[in-house]
Amino acid sequence: MLNPIPERQWDTRRAEKRRRQALGASIATGKVIPTGDIVAFLEAVTAPGDRVVLEGNNQKQADFLSRALADADPTRLHDLHMIIPSVSRVEHLDLFERGIARKLDFAYAGAQSVRISQFLADGLLEIGAIHTYIELYSRLYVDLTPHIVLTAGYKADRDGNLYTGPSTEDSPALVEAAAFRDGIVIAQVNEIVDDPADLPRVDIPGSWIDYVVQSDKPFFCEPLFTRDPRLIKPVHILMAMMAIRGIYERHDVQSLNHGIGFNTAAIELILPTYGEQLGLKGKICKYWTLNPHPTLIPAIESGWVESVHSFGSELGMEDYVAARPDVFFTGADGSMRSNRALCQLAGQYAVDLFIGSTLQIDGDGHSSTVTRGRLSGFGGAPNMGHNPGGRRHATPAWLDLIESDDPLARGRKLVVQMVETFQAGGKPTFVESMDAVQVAKDSGMPLAPVMI
Amino acid sequence: MLNPIPERQWDTRRAEKRRRQALGASIATGKVIPTGDIVAFLEAVTAPGDRVVLEGNNQKQADFLSRALADADPTRLHDLHMIIPSVSRVEHLDLFERGIARKLDFAYAGAQSVRISQFLADGLLEIGAIHTYIELYSRLYVDLTPHIVLTAGYKADRDGNLYTGPSTEDSPALVEAAAFRDGIVIAQVNEIVDDPADLPRVDIPGSWIDYVVQSDKPFFCEPLFTRDPRLIKPVHILMAMMAIRGIYERHDVQSLNHGIGFNTAAIELILPTYGEQLGLKGKICKYWTLNPHPTLIPAIESGWVESVHSFGSELGMEDYVAARPDVFFTGADGSMRSNRALCQLAGQYAVDLFIGSTLQIDGDGHSSTVTRGRLSGFGGAPNMGHNPGGRRHATPAWLDLIESDDPLARGRKLVVQMVETFQAGGKPTFVESMDAVQVAKDSGMPLAPVMI
Repeated sequence: MLNPIPERQWDTRRAEKRRRQALGASIATGKVIPTGDIVAFLEAVTAPGDRVVLEGNNQKQADFLSRALADADPTRLHDLHMIIPSVSRVEHLDLFERGIARKLDFAYAGAQSVRISQFLADGLLEIGAIHTYIELYSRLYVDLTPHIVLTAGYKADRDGNLYTGPSTEDSPALVEAAAFRDGIVIAQVNEIVDDPADLPRVDIPGSWIDYVVQSDKPFFCEPLFTRDPRLIKPVHILMAMMAIRGIYERHDVQSLNHGIGFNTAAIELILPTYGEQLGLKGKICKYWTLNPHPTLIPAIESGWVESVHSFGSELGMEDYVAARPDVFFTGADGSMRSNRALCQLAGQYAVDLFIGSTLQIDGDGHSSTVTRGRLSGFGGAPNMGHNPGGRRHATPAWLDLIESDDPLARGRKLVVQMVETFQAGGKPTFVESMDAVQVAKDSGMPLAPVMI
Repeated sequence: MLNPIPERQWDTRRAEKRRRQALGASIATGKVIPTGDIVAFLEAVTAPGDRVVLEGNNQKQADFLSRALADADPTRLHDLHMIIPSVSRVEHLDLFERGIARKLDFAYAGAQSVRISQFLADGLLEIGAIHTYIELYSRLYVDLTPHIVLTAGYKADRDGNLYTGPSTEDSPALVEAAAFRDGIVIAQVNEIVDDPADLPRVDIPGSWIDYVVQSDKPFFCEPLFTRDPRLIKPVHILMAMMAIRGIYERHDVQSLNHGIGFNTAAIELILPTYGEQLGLKGKICKYWTLNPHPTLIPAIESGWVESVHSFGSELGMEDYVAARPDVFFTGADGSMRSNRALCQLAGQYAVDLFIGSTLQIDGDGHSSTVTRGRLSGFGGAPNMGHNPGGRRHATPAWLDLIESDDPLARGRKLVVQMVETFQAGGKPTFVESMDAVQVAKDSGMPLAPVMI
């Protein structure tokens, strides 16, 4: 008699999730983890080698959870594979120094970029890949499906219904990847409410969130786009005038993305004066994909702006945004809803122009903000700053860039870099070879970190 | 004395939404619209000239709502600007024939593509643009923000919490655009439950949905990917063997998207036999972005497949998917969660290979499925079938396509078209000039509808 072929088990992920949840059951009350027990809880439900998504993005940080994870016992939690959109806090790298984590996939590193380079050289850290934000989210649905997702919001009820407030950011894209593949989702919130009716709205349904924990203090949020307008110099104004007259007006730019920087802030600020003199109000710059920049206020107040869709929030702009629902995306409760994944898509596919600044440009027009000794990553710029071959709809600005009679010729997204020939200290912007090429060699990266 | 400058009102959209909701208040009970009153309700809350998003995608159709809208009184509702991802039902075009709608933005038209061309010639219809799916979603957040969104799900409670079932599709991307910009969201469902606990899970939170209505019959869903394997011919098997041996094995293809068609179905079917003989199991074809194709079952059962993330569902595959949670994305309730926007992103940015079929290829490698007299649109192929310039992470397959020593050289996504030299009736696949060029001229399209 033949031995029967053993049945394969097809719910190993689900069974493993249940096993871990049983380990955490004595600590949590239903979905609520007591604040003081978070380290023990993370140790209970996480296993060595797990892929752990930690929300750290341009603004919002799941910092209570990252601090807790960094406090875990390395003999219990080790060799984690961290997936962190923006590595921006000290404890993000403490995880590697303490041996809790081993491998890192990320998109951007700000203040921590020097330390990443050092850790890499010291063998404390192994890099999976450096992505744009949207590539990193994409991989969560393909070959980097997470075991654990650590996210952050303003409020939750005891069923896990989550109100992210204006900083929805990339939470939905991160959470969905675990919620629908038997991963465990833990959300830190500033406040847990007893009555679901006390939630202003639901940004992520409770059935996607396994646990909530009230953080010891409100999550950290970086005011990234607030700049002192007094630091805008005459050269920035001149460059802004050139951009409006030479590019925006000439190519009929209706929809656009502005990055961070004094050059683009100057464009925003002089629309109601210089732009108005040129008779361009209502003709250009109507639809925006950008965070609520304070320097956009004059253009909004004077009626230039039809709509603004945002990646994330801007600290201090909450009340202004809530008072201008005709312009910003807001919920029935009145507060903003941002969405980094959708805004990156809009910035890639639905706008006429991307404009930014850079540090080095070579003879072929390649540009990079990477300089030696820093692994700062890509963020969103290469996604929004390329001409997507998959675009099929036309706009006047896009068609205006066709330069041939070929019936198969396609338009182009306007991708603009605003630079001065020399930077502070007489450092040239136009170079023979970008530092990025050497950085790639030094770090063993498979290709040079070119932004655009 | 100077006259005070009149204060601008900044919540005109919200006020207009409230005004319309007041008009519908006598018909609906809270959020619930009685099935028989749907036409009157749509007439009450919609206004001439509105931008109306109607969910019609590859599979799921908000057909009760589209039939109701087509039954509206054209003297009350006219000149609507319809935004329909996939124009696939008779009533989608009846809207134009009856004068209820005037302008159309879409991504794909199947059976209705001939009629679109006729209506365009007859002046009954004006086309905004033809998009890929993901471009169309993107524009909902920029210059095509909707006044009304009509969507479909399996179940809802009386607070509007929506269970989409396995066919989540593009509902979240469509609904979010209206829910957070004071548009009105109406969901048709097969069943309204009294107790929220009777919802298997929540796919879209109730605070995003303004109204629910129980449809007269379950929403239509097209079984698009179910093909009779007996129709797979020896030439398909031969082509599948060539693809596996010459492309998948050679370039180490780990993650991939398969479209519809007998060629790719043949690849799926022979992985457990031919692929296994080559010793490729566990080495290639591990991570998939595609709908639950029945022809993938042998590869799944024999352990080839690590994960499948899906755009939408496939009728008849629900129970199989629910029984294989290690492979498919499923919710805590056990049923699949699909997401067209995220899967398109994954197919664009996170896979090694896109493979499909086409009807015409020219000398430059351009291809198109457009033939004369049909405006079939783009769907998702141009998005997934291009090499995105914004990609920054590397995989072995991607790096394998670098052919130069330039330190700035980039890898490529593998984009493959499987065709026979001659089609049925001796029609050549390789042509001097694609029909698409003439179609563009005849229809006044700004550029020829090239797929890839």
